[in-house]
Amino acid sequence: MATIVFYSFKNRAQATSRRSFISNLKWLSRAGQSRPSCPLSSGPLTTSRTTGVRFMSHGTAAGRSRRGVLALSGAAAVTTAAAALAGFLANVNHFRQAEMATLVPRAAEETDQEGDILSRCRGFMSPPVTDVGVLRERKDEMCTRMEMLIMETQAEFCKALQEVDGGTFKVDRWDRKEGGGGISCVMQDGEVFEKAGVNVSVVFGHLTEDAARQMRSRGKVLKGKDGKLPFCAMGVSSVIHPKNPHIPTVHFNYRYFEIEEEDGSKQWWFGGGTDLTPVYVNKDDAFHFHNTLKEACDKHHSQYYPDFKKWCDRYFYIRHRGETRGIGGIFFDDLDAPGQEEAFGFVKSCARTVVPCYLPIVYKHLHDPFTDQEKHWQQVRRGRYVEFNLVYDRGVKFGLATPGSRIESILMSLPLTARWEYMHEPVCGTREAEMLEVLRNPKEWV
Amino acid sequence: MATIVFYSFKNRAQATSRRSFISNLKWLSRAGQSRPSCPLSSGPLTTSRTTGVRFMSHGTAAGRSRRGVLALSGAAAVTTAAAALAGFLANVNHFRQAEMATLVPRAAEETDQEGDILSRCRGFMSPPVTDVGVLRERKDEMCTRMEMLIMETQAEFCKALQEVDGGTFKVDRWDRKEGGGGISCVMQDGEVFEKAGVNVSVVFGHLTEDAARQMRSRGKVLKGKDGKLPFCAMGVSSVIHPKNPHIPTVHFNYRYFEIEEEDGSKQWWFGGGTDLTPVYVNKDDAFHFHNTLKEACDKHHSQYYPDFKKWCDRYFYIRHRGETRGIGGIFFDDLDAPGQEEAFGFVKSCARTVVPCYLPIVYKHLHDPFTDQEKHWQQVRRGRYVEFNLVYDRGVKFGLATPGSRIESILMSLPLTARWEYMHEPVCGTREAEMLEVLRNPKEWV
Repeated sequence: MATIVFYSFKNRAQATSRRSFISNLKWLSRAGQSRPSCPLSSGPLTTSRTTGVRFMSHGTAAGRSRRGVLALSGAAAVTTAAAALAGFLANVNHFRQAEMATLVPRAAEETDQEGDILSRCRGFMSPPVTDVGVLRERKDEMCTRMEMLIMETQAEFCKALQEVDGGTFKVDRWDRKEGGGGISCVMQDGEVFEKAGVNVSVVFGHLTEDAARQMRSRGKVLKGKDGKLPFCAMGVSSVIHPKNPHIPTVHFNYRYFEIEEEDGSKQWWFGGGTDLTPVYVNKDDAFHFHNTLKEACDKHHSQYYPDFKKWCDRYFYIRHRGETRGIGGIFFDDLDAPGQEEAFGFVKSCARTVVPCYLPIVYKHLHDPFTDQEKHWQQVRRGRYVEFNLVYDRGVKFGLATPGSRIESILMSLPLTARWEYMHEPVCGTREAEMLEVLRNPKEWV
Repeated sequence: MATIVFYSFKNRAQATSRRSFISNLKWLSRAGQSRPSCPLSSGPLTTSRTTGVRFMSHGTAAGRSRRGVLALSGAAAVTTAAAALAGFLANVNHFRQAEMATLVPRAAEETDQEGDILSRCRGFMSPPVTDVGVLRERKDEMCTRMEMLIMETQAEFCKALQEVDGGTFKVDRWDRKEGGGGISCVMQDGEVFEKAGVNVSVVFGHLTEDAARQMRSRGKVLKGKDGKLPFCAMGVSSVIHPKNPHIPTVHFNYRYFEIEEEDGSKQWWFGGGTDLTPVYVNKDDAFHFHNTLKEACDKHHSQYYPDFKKWCDRYFYIRHRGETRGIGGIFFDDLDAPGQEEAFGFVKSCARTVVPCYLPIVYKHLHDPFTDQEKHWQQVRRGRYVEFNLVYDRGVKFGLATPGSRIESILMSLPLTARWEYMHEPVCGTREAEMLEVLRNPKEWV
C-alpha cells in the first residue's frame, strides 16, 4: 500500500536544515509540557426556551467579557481516554511520514487516541476558543473533538513553519460579539515567508433559513423555528505565501457545521481541502503533494481522491481568466456520509497531512536561487491569487458580507504584495508559459 | 458666479513644467491636422425583422473583419455644423479654466459646437469604434454624439498625461464578438504614472430582461420582445495610479445606455462621475478638485453637486473596512431628466472637467519628495483600492460576469502593485491616521 515518496535534499545547506527540522520534532514533543496551562472556568448551565439548546455562561479563557457558548449536544461517538501528548506523538509520526513513507510503519497513527483535553491544550498556540472546562465536560461531542483537532492542526503547522523560518507567529485571540471567536496566527515578512496565516474560528448563534442554505454548497433547504436555526461552525484555515518563487503557496481549510432544525434534529457536515499554488511547475513537488493527499484519502475511500481532486480544480477556478488558481489538491464540502465518525476520521487524516504535504517542499527549495524575472512572475501570480480570493472564494465572500466577521482574519489570505500588468502574457516556450498551460488545462499528477 | 481656484506652482521645476504644459496646448491644437485621416467605409443598410432596428454591415475602420453595428435611431437633438477643431478649442478653454477660473471668460465654451465628425476624429487616439461613415451619416443621433464625446475625452486626457509623463500610451483596439468593441489606452511604469488606463467601449446587442434590470441601478423593469431587448451601451472610463504618493489616484467614467422595449419605445440614461483617491489629505487639492466639479455641476442644476457628491461617498464605500475608497467627487446613474439634450449637456460638462480637475494637482506635486514610509502607505492604500474594485464595483462585477468582456480592459483599473499587511493601523496623530479619519468620516470640501 505504501507509496514511495521521492525526496532529496539538493545541497549541504539543505541537509543542515533537514537536521534542524528533525531535531525540532523532539522540541515539539517537549513544548506542550513547558507552556502554561489553560485557565479553567465554568459557569451555570442555562437552557434556551425557544430552542431547547443548552447554553453555558462562563468567563473566557483569556479573562475577557463573559459570553454564552452554544454547546450543541452532538451525535458524537465515544472515544477512549488516552495518554497526554498523544496528539504530539501523532504529529511526529505524520512529520516523518512525508520523508520516510516507505521506511516507517504507521503503528502510532493506527492506534491514535484523542487523549486528555488538558494535556493536548498545552501544545496549542493559545487557549482554545471554548473554555477548557466546557471542552472537558463535553469531550465526546463532535464540536469538542473538532475544536481540538483544528487547534492541534494550527499548532502543528505554525510550529513547523516557525522552525523553518526562524520567526515567530503573532497570536491574536478575538471574540465574535454574536457568539464564539477565534485565534489568528500570522507571521509577516519573515525570512522564508512573505506572509503566513493560520486561523482557527469557532462561531455559533442563529442563522436565517436563507443564510443556512448559503452555508451549504448544495443549498439544502433547512427548516428553522420561526425561520431561525441554532448553528455552530468551526474550522482551521491557512494560506502561506513564501518569498522564494520556487516555494509554492499552500492553502488548506478544514471545517465542521452543525445546524439544529425545528424538530430538534441535527444537520452536520464537514468540508475542507488542501491545495498548492506554485509559481513554476515542478513535477516532483506536484507528485509528492498530490500523492500524500491521495494516501490519506485512500485509507478512507478509493473515490475520495479522484472525486475531491476534480472538485478542487473546479472550485479554485478563476473564471474570467480561464485559469485554475494553482495545481489543486483536494476539496470537498457537505460531507455527511457514511457516518459522522467515519467522516471525522477522514477529516482528521486530511488535517494531519498538511505538514507532510507541504514542509518537505519548503525545505527542498529553501535555498534555491532566483532571478528578478522569477520574482516578477511570482508577483503577477500573486495578483491572480487576490483575484480568486476577492471575486470567487465563497468563504471570503460570506465572511465580508457577514456582520461581526473579523475582516483581518479573512483577508490575511491575501499576499503581502501583488502585481497587475496590463496584457501580461509569458513568451512561448518559457517556464512561465509552461505554468500557465498547466493552469489552463489541469493535469493528473499521480 | 465664477469661483476663485487657488493654484500655485511651488518651485522653478514646476514652473518649467507649466510652460511645457501650456505649450502643449498649442501642439494639441495642431495634432488633429497632422494625424492620418480615418479610413472610411460603409455598407448596405439592413433592418432587423424582430426589432425594426436598422443594422449596417460594413468593414471596420481598422480594416478588421466585417461586423454588424446596431445603429439605434435616437431622440437626438439637432446640432448645427461647426468649424473643424472646435473640440480642441473647447479643450484648450477648459484647460485654462482650472488655472485661471476668474481671469478668462468662458466665451469659447458657451459657443461650443460639436463640429465636423471627420475633423474631430483626426485628434482621437485611434479611429472610433463605429465606422466614421456611419457616424457622419447619423451625426445627430445621441449614440453618435456620445461616442464622439467619449473618444474626445479619451484623447484629451491621454495627451495631457503623456505630456506630463513623457511616456506614450499603448493603444489597443478590440472587437467584441457579440457586437461593438473598444479602444484601450494604457501607459505602464512611466516616469510619473505607475499605471494609467483610459478605456472607451461601445457595445451593442441584445440583453435579457434580467440583465437589463441589472444594468440600471434603480432596477427598472423593462419589457422586451420574447424577453430580449436590443441595447447600446458606451462609455469612457479611466483610472490613473501615479508613482509619487503625493499625487492622488483619479478615476472617472461617463457612460450612456439605450434600450429598446417591445413597443419600440426607447429607454436611455446617462451615468458617470469623477472621484479622487489621495494617499494623504491635502485640503487645497481636495478643494480644487471638488470645486472644479461643483462649477461644472452648478451650470446645470444647483442640486447636482450636493446630491452627486453624497452619492459618490455612498457608492465608493468599502463596507467591510468602514472606509470610503477616497475623498470622493461626484457620481450619478440613471440620469434621464430633465431631457436628453440637457442630460447630455451636463455629461459633456463633466467629461470636459476631467483634465482641469486632475492635471493641476499632478503638476503641483510632480517633484514632491517622498519617503519609504510614504510609499509604503501608498501601497497599503492601493490594496484597499483593489478590494473595492474586485468586491464592490458594479462595473467590474458586471464585466467579469459577462461573457465576451475584455478582461484586460476591465482590470486595467487595478494598480501595478499593492500591499496587504495584517492588522495595519496608522499611529494616532500621523498623516496616515489623518487620511483614515477622512475616509471613515467623509467631509465637505467646498
